[in-house]
Amino acid sequence: MRMEDMILVSIDDHMIEPPDMYENHVPAKWRDDAPKVVRNEQGVDEWVFQGQKTSTPFGMAATVGWPREQWGFNPGAYSELRPGCFDVHERVRDMNANGVLASMCFPTMAGFNARTFHESRDKEIALVMLQAYNDWAIDEWCGTYPGRFIPLGIVPMWDVDLAVQEIHRLGKKGCRSISFLETPHVQGFPSFLSGYWDPMLKALCDENMVLSLHIGAGFDVIKRAPEAPIDHLMVLACQISAITAQDLLFGPTLRQFPDLKVALSEGGIGWIPFYFDRVDRHFQNQSWLGNDFGGKLPSEVFRDHVLACYITDPSGLLLRDRIGVDIIAWECDYPHTDTTWPESPEFAWKELQDADCSGAEIHKITWQNATRFFGWDPFEHTPREQATVGALRGLAEDVDTTRMTREEWKSRNEATGIGVF
Amino acid sequence: MRMEDMILVSIDDHMIEPPDMYENHVPAKWRDDAPKVVRNEQGVDEWVFQGQKTSTPFGMAATVGWPREQWGFNPGAYSELRPGCFDVHERVRDMNANGVLASMCFPTMAGFNARTFHESRDKEIALVMLQAYNDWAIDEWCGTYPGRFIPLGIVPMWDVDLAVQEIHRLGKKGCRSISFLETPHVQGFPSFLSGYWDPMLKALCDENMVLSLHIGAGFDVIKRAPEAPIDHLMVLACQISAITAQDLLFGPTLRQFPDLKVALSEGGIGWIPFYFDRVDRHFQNQSWLGNDFGGKLPSEVFRDHVLACYITDPSGLLLRDRIGVDIIAWECDYPHTDTTWPESPEFAWKELQDADCSGAEIHKITWQNATRFFGWDPFEHTPREQATVGALRGLAEDVDTTRMTREEWKSRNEATGIGVF
Repeated sequence: MRMEDMILVSIDDHMIEPPDMYENHVPAKWRDDAPKVVRNEQGVDEWVFQGQKTSTPFGMAATVGWPREQWGFNPGAYSELRPGCFDVHERVRDMNANGVLASMCFPTMAGFNARTFHESRDKEIALVMLQAYNDWAIDEWCGTYPGRFIPLGIVPMWDVDLAVQEIHRLGKKGCRSISFLETPHVQGFPSFLSGYWDPMLKALCDENMVLSLHIGAGFDVIKRAPEAPIDHLMVLACQISAITAQDLLFGPTLRQFPDLKVALSEGGIGWIPFYFDRVDRHFQNQSWLGNDFGGKLPSEVFRDHVLACYITDPSGLLLRDRIGVDIIAWECDYPHTDTTWPESPEFAWKELQDADCSGAEIHKITWQNATRFFGWDPFEHTPREQATVGALRGLAEDVDTTRMTREEWKSRNEATGIGVF
Repeated sequence: MRMEDMILVSIDDHMIEPPDMYENHVPAKWRDDAPKVVRNEQGVDEWVFQGQKTSTPFGMAATVGWPREQWGFNPGAYSELRPGCFDVHERVRDMNANGVLASMCFPTMAGFNARTFHESRDKEIALVMLQAYNDWAIDEWCGTYPGRFIPLGIVPMWDVDLAVQEIHRLGKKGCRSISFLETPHVQGFPSFLSGYWDPMLKALCDENMVLSLHIGAGFDVIKRAPEAPIDHLMVLACQISAITAQDLLFGPTLRQFPDLKVALSEGGIGWIPFYFDRVDRHFQNQSWLGNDFGGKLPSEVFRDHVLACYITDPSGLLLRDRIGVDIIAWECDYPHTDTTWPESPEFAWKELQDADCSGAEIHKITWQNATRFFGWDPFEHTPREQATVGALRGLAEDVDTTRMTREEWKSRNEATGIGVF
């Protein structure tokens, strides 16, 4: 097997929703209420919804085209971005240049858990716009390129019954997963252990959809020192995946819903062998607690339910047998700072080779586990021989992957009208 | 090398301080103010100090002699305990039976961070009793058996200048380490990043003493769901060591004090390869943050300062080369629930063999790293050939290691006056 023979399916990428996303998906009655992008006096594009203004820290969330020196928690204008961030045609070209067959994209403006809509005043309008987001994401972003995107939706967290209805609506549209909070109790919602979300979890099982819990949403589960630098957020985010796993595994959730599937998106995998050692020892040593895992070890129950996802994780790959090579899935993270684009094949291949992975293991990790878990056929629209890194890169020889400054992007994009709305 | 040839030095054990501990160490003027043990109507032995009553959850902290069914967060009487918990002569016999040459013991009644004294009203008396604790621990507990204990002290956290003075006093007495909070900011103290503790850290460097940060002290750094079961405390405690490491590594502490040595007591080791992957990638990828590790990688700075300590950690041992085999130290954790006593040699040997450790690596992990780090000569009082598992067990053939119920211990101990004060 050669690097060019790999097939890459990434179940963690992000779209920077374009300003025109609501045009085709909001009933006429509500059109004026849709979120709008307004450029402020500092040249920053802000979303305005129900009087609330928010800007995206493009310097962390959309840096894929920029040199490292320009990264940071700063916002900006759409025209400063590599167009693949927000334009699906350009995105697919960028996927081809990176040898990526398919991608599952998380929201940005809407928030991993539809925060923007949850925090808005008028929940009737919020629901209309949340559904418009889902329709745009599934029908327009994913629908424009069949076979290139795994559809992911969001749900109205403010009402679990509405969330159930939305999951069923999404399921009928072919959506494969929802994005949700990893530690809801930290944001003032009931916890996974509370039972409050059970109807929603049951709906996911009924629709055979995956609960995707992306890192970052639960960062405040850690009480940081007031002087803690920004580095803490980035370094410790994956430690929180262990806390999420613990909530699901020692709370009732995973045992109560035998069919529930949970993706720990961007959660990393290297913490898992240690966590397994610890929970299995705990279960056996602290038998006085009377935990019942149905005749299994806690690690086995975890493996029955969880997809463990990584961008780069050399130590975790070395211990893949202790994690379970059938629950590991690779991710690209386009267009965030952690992405390996446009050298993802080289980067992933080297790590997999350094860990002595066989060809069969590489296929499991780079596409088979993810597509099985999300119930999504990668070859429905793309014959397998056209799905490889080598074949896709062959389609993208004209794609320029050079990093350029924000200023260069702006001048180039505005000359051609890209990113100007 | 055979199991019997191992030399075991444990830098994480605990004493259940005996009620008579203050008798020889409190000046006459203060004798009536010393903490006292009083048995309450429920038969529970409580420490009484300045009007505050506290009882120890013996069911977690002193279970070494009991069957698992009797564990739990419940207090009891000294006479229900295996006498090695509180009696140094019996402790040494139990160490012999377990093949353990030397042990560093953390306080129980006093608290890992001298909490009992910090929380008391009269700080003048509190300081007298804290120093009496240290004098008892060093001169009496450790001093009775030269060569069998590595002395560990505590400091008055309520006043950093007093803490500095106490560290110098302890250093003169041959004390090798202090026990402290892993995340002080969570308990309302200034954080390690704040600079407040710098004089204390400097004093430790000046005395070549180790800062020992035991798990558990910082558990509240995680905002748990209200429904989270007790399991969370036990399973997640080691995840907090990564948070502590992050505070020390990305705050100024480790870089500001090149001579500072930090033991992450009971912190486990299996999380470290993943943490190293993450911090080194973060440092290189997020170069815009301008972190300066003096020409080293963050993982290298960690290795310069930290002793990584484990009781059982099969995955961590497999990746010992990625951690650094020179920074790993084994622990016994007598008399807590996690201890492997009285089969520690068998337990540790099997894990080390399963990880294909060489004889040289085993010696590093079971005694060389710890004794070098704590600056303590294991063979000053015990010739090396008498320090092995085989030699020590040969001294303890009469030690009965049978687990017995609390009731059996009570009836047996009270018949001979053990644990009756």
